[in-house]
Amino acid sequence: MVSVEQQLKIIKRGVAEILPEALLAEKLKRGKPLKVKLGLDPTAPDIHLGHTVVLRKLKQFQDLGHHIIIIIGDFTGRIGDPTGRSETRKPLTDEDIRRNAKTYEEQIFKILDKEKTQVSFNSTWLAPLTFADVVNLAARYTVARMLEREDFTKRFKEGRPISVHEFFYPLMQGYDSVALTADIEFGGTDQKFNLLMGRHLQEEFGQEPQVAIMMPILEGLDGVQKMSKSLGNYIGIDEAPTEIYGKSMSIPDSLMVRYFELVTDVSLEELEEIRAGLENGTLHPRDTKVRLAYTLVRLYHGEALAEQAQNEFIKVFQQGDLPNDIPEITFENQSEPIWLPKLLMQLMLASGSSEAKRAIQQGSVKINGEKITDTDAKITVSDGMIVQVGKRKYAKVVFA
Amino acid sequence: MVSVEQQLKIIKRGVAEILPEALLAEKLKRGKPLKVKLGLDPTAPDIHLGHTVVLRKLKQFQDLGHHIIIIIGDFTGRIGDPTGRSETRKPLTDEDIRRNAKTYEEQIFKILDKEKTQVSFNSTWLAPLTFADVVNLAARYTVARMLEREDFTKRFKEGRPISVHEFFYPLMQGYDSVALTADIEFGGTDQKFNLLMGRHLQEEFGQEPQVAIMMPILEGLDGVQKMSKSLGNYIGIDEAPTEIYGKSMSIPDSLMVRYFELVTDVSLEELEEIRAGLENGTLHPRDTKVRLAYTLVRLYHGEALAEQAQNEFIKVFQQGDLPNDIPEITFENQSEPIWLPKLLMQLMLASGSSEAKRAIQQGSVKINGEKITDTDAKITVSDGMIVQVGKRKYAKVVFA
Repeated sequence: MVSVEQQLKIIKRGVAEILPEALLAEKLKRGKPLKVKLGLDPTAPDIHLGHTVVLRKLKQFQDLGHHIIIIIGDFTGRIGDPTGRSETRKPLTDEDIRRNAKTYEEQIFKILDKEKTQVSFNSTWLAPLTFADVVNLAARYTVARMLEREDFTKRFKEGRPISVHEFFYPLMQGYDSVALTADIEFGGTDQKFNLLMGRHLQEEFGQEPQVAIMMPILEGLDGVQKMSKSLGNYIGIDEAPTEIYGKSMSIPDSLMVRYFELVTDVSLEELEEIRAGLENGTLHPRDTKVRLAYTLVRLYHGEALAEQAQNEFIKVFQQGDLPNDIPEITFENQSEPIWLPKLLMQLMLASGSSEAKRAIQQGSVKINGEKITDTDAKITVSDGMIVQVGKRKYAKVVFA
Repeated sequence: MVSVEQQLKIIKRGVAEILPEALLAEKLKRGKPLKVKLGLDPTAPDIHLGHTVVLRKLKQFQDLGHHIIIIIGDFTGRIGDPTGRSETRKPLTDEDIRRNAKTYEEQIFKILDKEKTQVSFNSTWLAPLTFADVVNLAARYTVARMLEREDFTKRFKEGRPISVHEFFYPLMQGYDSVALTADIEFGGTDQKFNLLMGRHLQEEFGQEPQVAIMMPILEGLDGVQKMSKSLGNYIGIDEAPTEIYGKSMSIPDSLMVRYFELVTDVSLEELEEIRAGLENGTLHPRDTKVRLAYTLVRLYHGEALAEQAQNEFIKVFQQGDLPNDIPEITFENQSEPIWLPKLLMQLMLASGSSEAKRAIQQGSVKINGEKITDTDAKITVSDGMIVQVGKRKYAKVVFA
């Protein structure tokens, strides 16, 4: 096994918080494989890069010889984690849960080693609990401390309803750790309360508490908000190679190092080189982003398709040496094709239809790098479509 | 069956609140026996007059042909109703619950007709509930509304802990009504929240809600505080005839009508006569109290023992024609006998030992009506003991 010191170095990469760090070192020193737990709420069936932040970290633990346990929260899914939400969530149906769980399993094994990963459903130990067991569990925590959870506090203060059963979510998640005698539990920084509940309940049930390791929340393509499907600022790991490549190229420069650190497999040494290179100017941001895009496609589709996506991207976009600051115009996701001169006006690339037609006739209009000279052309817009007039004027279609 | 109008007249006697009254009339009009529920928390095994307020009301319902269901809260006893308490209560052991439940049954059938009363343990339907059922139940109420319960509000505001499992008490009690499809639930006015929870949950589960009937809380012998064993101001229905008689005689005059109304079986007509008689002075308070004491002993020990207790009381206490305003001196419940002259000084009936001895020698000292002439006598004090010096000086021993 790798030395404790080396393990800690690998483990700490990109981590937001470890609670308590001394206990982690102590557990590692025992030299036995640790039980490392991650709970997944089977709500959104598509895993995106935001989810992979923690999955990659688990992969590192797996490579270090530790035992990874993925909990599919099929039982907790009946409640839905209200963390970060402003309203009581509708419980998932059993069918939703089964379907989502299956999709999850398929996707997580693109990162984790299937042979070495335990996947458990928390209904296994939660469903058989009796009312008396539940009372015993609920007796371990107070209402006031429960309401200290940020989202509960907020909703309570604002007079928005919190159903009593929502208090069970953290209790159930914590009890999962008891049932598994987990050594470590992973989660995003927004999961701190729930992870600490696991520690509390393990102590209440006479176990050594787990170490809570929190991963940062990955910003999405907009560079500001948390990556999420509902915000549309995500890269799904199941997306096509060209999609992953293209979306990766739209990440703000400022986030490149963070993406390399959190969602790729580049080594700690490479990571340092990238960070330093960008800082001292020996690496060009554009080249680095190409490397990031390539790396991400390779991770989920392999070398060959990464190569292909890269070539395609270069062919389509790089010929015109696209600037980094293309204005984005938001469109409704409409299916009706738009008359090209009208589209140019909508994109503010022409001030009137005669100016637009002239530009088309002169051969200076390109859509996704392809020249279009037919003034009668009808264009079906697509998300991310880049429209160019001459050398300087660009616009990018973004679906609402 | 008795007419709805007449039933309502009987039912309303002494009742604090009926919610909603119109629904009660509607249910009665259907002419079918109603399911009338009372939950008893098997904590204090001794039933006192305070408990009989509601039990007598149930007896009236029973006599009107309705179906009485006593719920022994063996399952809820695991939590303990925090109503009116300032702290999380220790759960009862299974043994406590069984023992108390048995004592309860013995005592309630001194008031209710055993043959016509259903006694159920709420573990019957609560224990088999699964975690999923519990989640479903807890989803029916919000944390904010739960915290509106007076005692919860108070504890929450004062920063005293409320364990999450305490929220289950009202949910369980409410679910009892669902399990029984109760038409009416009884409780003290302090049970309003829990009774309304039953209505809420019945509606949530698609049933017609019950009517909540709240009985007033009976003041104890001190005339101020709620009758309770821990305050020592109670009359237990299992107490000896002389105890019940003597304690009844110590009730403040102002509470006599209330006691007749709430804890005796005098008819509505008799009750009105007593009320009016005391008001217009045709009835003497002392005679009325004798009647109350007699009635209470008769209720729990029958005519013969009531007669006997009355004669004994007259013999011991009335010979000296005791005044109504005997000063009370509080004693620790001590087992050591006290030298009589010293006792007289402690009771402020003598200013020194020689004065005390003189009074004893003169034959003017009586204890509970019995003359004592031995100046060396050692007296074991007892609660309620009346010590008299001459015709005018009295003191009553009250245990702390």
